Amino acid sequence: MAKFAKRIDYMQATADVVRYLFESMTDPETISFGGGAPAREALPVEIVHEIADEVLTREKRGVQALQYGNPIGIPDLRQAVIDRLLTPMGLKAGLENVIIVAGGIESMNLVSQLYLEPGDVVLVESPTFVHTVQIFKMFEARCIACETDDHGLVIEDVEAKIRQYSPKMIYVIPTFQNPSGRTMSLERRKALAELGSQYDIVILEDDPYCEMRYSGDRLPPVKYFDETGNTVFVNSFSKIFSPGSRLGYAFADEEIVRKIYDAKTATNSHTNVLTQILCAEFFNRGLFEPHLKMICDIHRERRNVMMDCIQSMLPEGVKYVYPDGGLFTWVELPGQVDTTAMLGDAVAQKVAYMPGREFFVEGQPVRDNCMRVSFGGVMPEKIPVGMERLAKVIRSKLYRTRS
Amino acid sequence: MAKFAKRIDYMQATADVVRYLFESMTDPETISFGGGAPAREALPVEIVHEIADEVLTREKRGVQALQYGNPIGIPDLRQAVIDRLLTPMGLKAGLENVIIVAGGIESMNLVSQLYLEPGDVVLVESPTFVHTVQIFKMFEARCIACETDDHGLVIEDVEAKIRQYSPKMIYVIPTFQNPSGRTMSLERRKALAELGSQYDIVILEDDPYCEMRYSGDRLPPVKYFDETGNTVFVNSFSKIFSPGSRLGYAFADEEIVRKIYDAKTATNSHTNVLTQILCAEFFNRGLFEPHLKMICDIHRERRNVMMDCIQSMLPEGVKYVYPDGGLFTWVELPGQVDTTAMLGDAVAQKVAYMPGREFFVEGQPVRDNCMRVSFGGVMPEKIPVGMERLAKVIRSKLYRTRS
Repeated sequence: MAKFAKRIDYMQATADVVRYLFESMTDPETISFGGGAPAREALPVEIVHEIADEVLTREKRGVQALQYGNPIGIPDLRQAVIDRLLTPMGLKAGLENVIIVAGGIESMNLVSQLYLEPGDVVLVESPTFVHTVQIFKMFEARCIACETDDHGLVIEDVEAKIRQYSPKMIYVIPTFQNPSGRTMSLERRKALAELGSQYDIVILEDDPYCEMRYSGDRLPPVKYFDETGNTVFVNSFSKIFSPGSRLGYAFADEEIVRKIYDAKTATNSHTNVLTQILCAEFFNRGLFEPHLKMICDIHRERRNVMMDCIQSMLPEGVKYVYPDGGLFTWVELPGQVDTTAMLGDAVAQKVAYMPGREFFVEGQPVRDNCMRVSFGGVMPEKIPVGMERLAKVIRSKLYRTRS
Repeated sequence: MAKFAKRIDYMQATADVVRYLFESMTDPETISFGGGAPAREALPVEIVHEIADEVLTREKRGVQALQYGNPIGIPDLRQAVIDRLLTPMGLKAGLENVIIVAGGIESMNLVSQLYLEPGDVVLVESPTFVHTVQIFKMFEARCIACETDDHGLVIEDVEAKIRQYSPKMIYVIPTFQNPSGRTMSLERRKALAELGSQYDIVILEDDPYCEMRYSGDRLPPVKYFDETGNTVFVNSFSKIFSPGSRLGYAFADEEIVRKIYDAKTATNSHTNVLTQILCAEFFNRGLFEPHLKMICDIHRERRNVMMDCIQSMLPEGVKYVYPDGGLFTWVELPGQVDTTAMLGDAVAQKVAYMPGREFFVEGQPVRDNCMRVSFGGVMPEKIPVGMERLAKVIRSKLYRTRS
């Protein structure tokens, strides 16, 4: 059988864990804090049904929905992105600055197509999003982690690593970060944009959780402070509309958008038109804002229940992040508990989480005693049940570690 | 502004022509034989409307449609591919051999991810499909064209080029080829599969038009003759269901499917779930077979009208392919008419086609006097109007060339 390309070997290791988690999520008895899915109760099934029923006729948008589309996306969805998402963040965009893609992951894939050569260095947060690291590995880039604290990337460490590694790109999830749930401060957002401009580095800003804020004040994105076009802002509709629709967008300087257009054409021609129409109508009928409020109410409750459980159920010495939004908290266990080794026991007890090890790369210490705990996809009454199971598994490990 | 990767420069040239054609297609006055779109009248708007209306509820499949899916695709669509498409071709497949992707182009992109290193050689037909060449260029592969005649790839030339270039992959569209409309003979299909096995080369078989046969007998695919797993069979639902849905699949040995799964995960997580459900229901409600008959009836009429126009309207000395199916014919003009240079005049006369030059790569002569003429997207009563305009432009060029 013909040999696979090197990039396929590089990306192998993590993919197995991702597949394992996908599989554990299919057992209905398992309470999974492992995935990154939002609440199924927050999915706009009735809204999509009503819009689909209305637009899927030959007189309305049925033919457009089923025929080939333009690689850049349909104009009304791009305009909705500008009016309803970018403008409220203080970002100034024209239609030529926005391209629709098939989800947040695809936006990262396309920006990597644009910039990354084998051996290029990408600076990332520590911890960082495992799926994006997989993409960078597929492009044979070297990921170097920078130090983070409760206010996000430590800018001094980023600058030191810029000097040491001459990176091509810096990848950041500034708001309710995946996996840590942390949010980068205003000052650091500004400083990061300035570093991108000063050293001519691409800042890939991935902000899929920014609309899902349950407490605290909204912050402008890194892109807001970009004066040279070095920051590429990408986002997903997965959390505010629907993950299964695979919709996202990139906002960047026109020249960059034109190159993304070329890479998109050679990746899959264009994004599914029907769901672009459904999503555009969702915005343009004024349904987004009330739906977002409902989403935030649902997830705020889950966040609150989860944080209560963590405080009351997990053994003493456990550290955690209190997230102001998004879907995740980040739990650091005491002692030398290896959360990767523990996952099998947890799945046997019908509870799952994402082991921390997967989120660490070269440049910062791997912390095997951490885990990403997602509260988004679990009903509030099930969170205590799952956390009780998880606490039991953790206690048994702590006991064994200490004895 | 940060420097783009080399691959982006390599793919530049053709992308401009593709964009130009996309733009010319938006003028409603222009009759475009340029695109590869099927008839809008053949799009299953009413079918999709009815299915969407029925499945988009929380009790049925509404939550599944909007939530994250599995990278391999939904089981009922994969089973439909096996039962309704692969089995009738004589192909034996299990669920582990089929992965759903976001259209035919994406299947080519993913197989390229799996195999191509910079500098690898891909053997292609001459002429070959321009979009796929763009993908190979994005992967920094070198495309070498092999000789073709009315029965497809000339096997002796393929074998000579295998010895000369040690290619990693051979790319072939065996049925109603894009752009030529030609079909590869049974003997050559078998011989090509055997060459793949003998020299351990990946045969990438792309067969999106095979169901759209208007005359003559069906042939088994190259994959049918593959005994070593070297042939990867990819296909699209664009022509038999809907292009805008961006659905396709790959059929290959399980190990290859697992690697495509990894590459798909790092490209865009998974394919849009809603349209996977709509397409699965389309098959499983028995709607595919009567719809396909309607599609073939519509396109057969257009093929017939187009071939009559070519015979009666175009100047003497024009050569052409009579296609037994698909969407294209291939026209070779007499003399030294450059169809790329002529496109501007044609668009000014409100008619478009795809210049032949784009379909030629290194290894075979570039034939500037050829064009791909697509009859799929034009109403039968408009075909003579467009062809009259095109004939006029051609005659004016011939006159100028001769004078």
